[in-house]
Amino acid sequence: MIWMFSQHYQHYLDLFEPYLEQAFPEQARSWGGNVTTAARYSLLSGGKRIRPVLVLATVACLGSDPELALPYAAALEMIHTYSLVHDDLPCMDDDDLRRGRPTCHKQFGEALAVLAGDALLNRAFEVMLDDMTTGCQNKIEAARIIARAAGSSGMIAGQTLDLEAEGQLIPPEKLERLHQLKTGQLILAPVLAACALADASVPVTSLFQSFAANLGLAFQIQDDILDVTASESRLGKSTGKDQRDQKSTYVTLFGLDTAQAYLKEATRQAKEALGAVAGLGYDTTFLEDLADYLLLRDH
Amino acid sequence: MIWMFSQHYQHYLDLFEPYLEQAFPEQARSWGGNVTTAARYSLLSGGKRIRPVLVLATVACLGSDPELALPYAAALEMIHTYSLVHDDLPCMDDDDLRRGRPTCHKQFGEALAVLAGDALLNRAFEVMLDDMTTGCQNKIEAARIIARAAGSSGMIAGQTLDLEAEGQLIPPEKLERLHQLKTGQLILAPVLAACALADASVPVTSLFQSFAANLGLAFQIQDDILDVTASESRLGKSTGKDQRDQKSTYVTLFGLDTAQAYLKEATRQAKEALGAVAGLGYDTTFLEDLADYLLLRDH
Repeated sequence: MIWMFSQHYQHYLDLFEPYLEQAFPEQARSWGGNVTTAARYSLLSGGKRIRPVLVLATVACLGSDPELALPYAAALEMIHTYSLVHDDLPCMDDDDLRRGRPTCHKQFGEALAVLAGDALLNRAFEVMLDDMTTGCQNKIEAARIIARAAGSSGMIAGQTLDLEAEGQLIPPEKLERLHQLKTGQLILAPVLAACALADASVPVTSLFQSFAANLGLAFQIQDDILDVTASESRLGKSTGKDQRDQKSTYVTLFGLDTAQAYLKEATRQAKEALGAVAGLGYDTTFLEDLADYLLLRDH
Repeated sequence: MIWMFSQHYQHYLDLFEPYLEQAFPEQARSWGGNVTTAARYSLLSGGKRIRPVLVLATVACLGSDPELALPYAAALEMIHTYSLVHDDLPCMDDDDLRRGRPTCHKQFGEALAVLAGDALLNRAFEVMLDDMTTGCQNKIEAARIIARAAGSSGMIAGQTLDLEAEGQLIPPEKLERLHQLKTGQLILAPVLAACALADASVPVTSLFQSFAANLGLAFQIQDDILDVTASESRLGKSTGKDQRDQKSTYVTLFGLDTAQAYLKEATRQAKEALGAVAGLGYDTTFLEDLADYLLLRDH
């Protein structure tokens, strides 16, 4: 079953990677091509592609063709990547290493990294809008879900709260809201966008919402745990930064054991919601395995 | 006639400003509201609102209700503003003054200025997508025009070329392409988006395209001229920077007199295209006055 899961995962990656590659093509240098090179450097540097896989798998789970979700999967990965490029800047997290390579600004300079992030965000919406020319309201709804999750009431709000919390311990409920916004919104958006694309009913969408909200929480707690337990070479980015920067995380606030207990509980609730979806006759095997994969990952 | 023009201009501003104000509303601090404060600081700091006025006036000229263009006018102003916020950053142009006030990063710090720019770009697409729920293909086309003009084949490409040209004199044809992209695309986009919204025919759209392309060129040359002829207090931003930074501009490449001749010629061609539109029975008075206004402006 583990093998079948990784084969299934690979199937989505095989669908996704060639689409992503052509969705942000190289450009002639005389047309400002350097920004494209910098954007592609960060966009096509591997990564787990969790958000794209989530949207493709949710659409497939709902009985629709995952190919119809490719523009939205690409948009989500572009938004995720731009947020990392800007987050790594010296004036933000000041990170040198990302996915095992120098960060965008280390490789191309700060100014080009700012523009590359801008270009990725902009292209995300271009890709979705281009798809809408064979228009239908479901596609517009999917794009709106992604835009809202990425914006200043979503991920950018979370980044802002994170900025303000720097160097201080914050109350647990504030940490939870911070993560719901900063990481959670872009885990929730692929699943809800998929529900819109596949025209899922309100009760089914609500079960998927509960699944994705808990998955996002589990994913963030795991991130906090890996910052103290994983090696830099395995993780492909700097570790131990949270303690150095006196950052509030599930580990620094509650300790490693409690954080691990929270992680298990969030994963349990995610799978419970998924179980209810399965009870309605949908095949949720891959999404269940995905939750396990995120719980057990070491990078 | 000058009075009527300014009254007409004010009419569009009176329509636009309240719409813009509510299109990016204040947010509670516990929802990352600081990024909203920083974004609104830059978005609502006045400015000529040329791009919004262009889209509203072109839609009106084509016989449609300008109110239908408000989301697209707001999106254009948000994109324009985000590009200024990021452009003013220390790693880019390093500017302290904008519209007579400290630049966004001077007021709120670099990290928040990066996020405020991101939030503005993201919100631009949210506003357009929200409008599309009363969907029609013309609106999608208008949004695509704006997305393309703002992206890494448009304005961001121009900013990248500008970055690479720093400290060196570039050939005139490269300067022209740079400006076609960096400034020209966001002057062209309001007019072409308006043509899409008002469902203009291909020949009419092509005349408007010629008008807007020349207007954009004239606008940029005027910008270069004002950098050497205007006072800092009148302009509301730092002047003399182009020479300090050894920037290629129409003035540094051709001298002030030739630049002024180019400005007149571009304006003449813009008005010629508009004359042809008028010949088809459209009332182009306001757009003609707008070209004069941009030619004669001293800030």
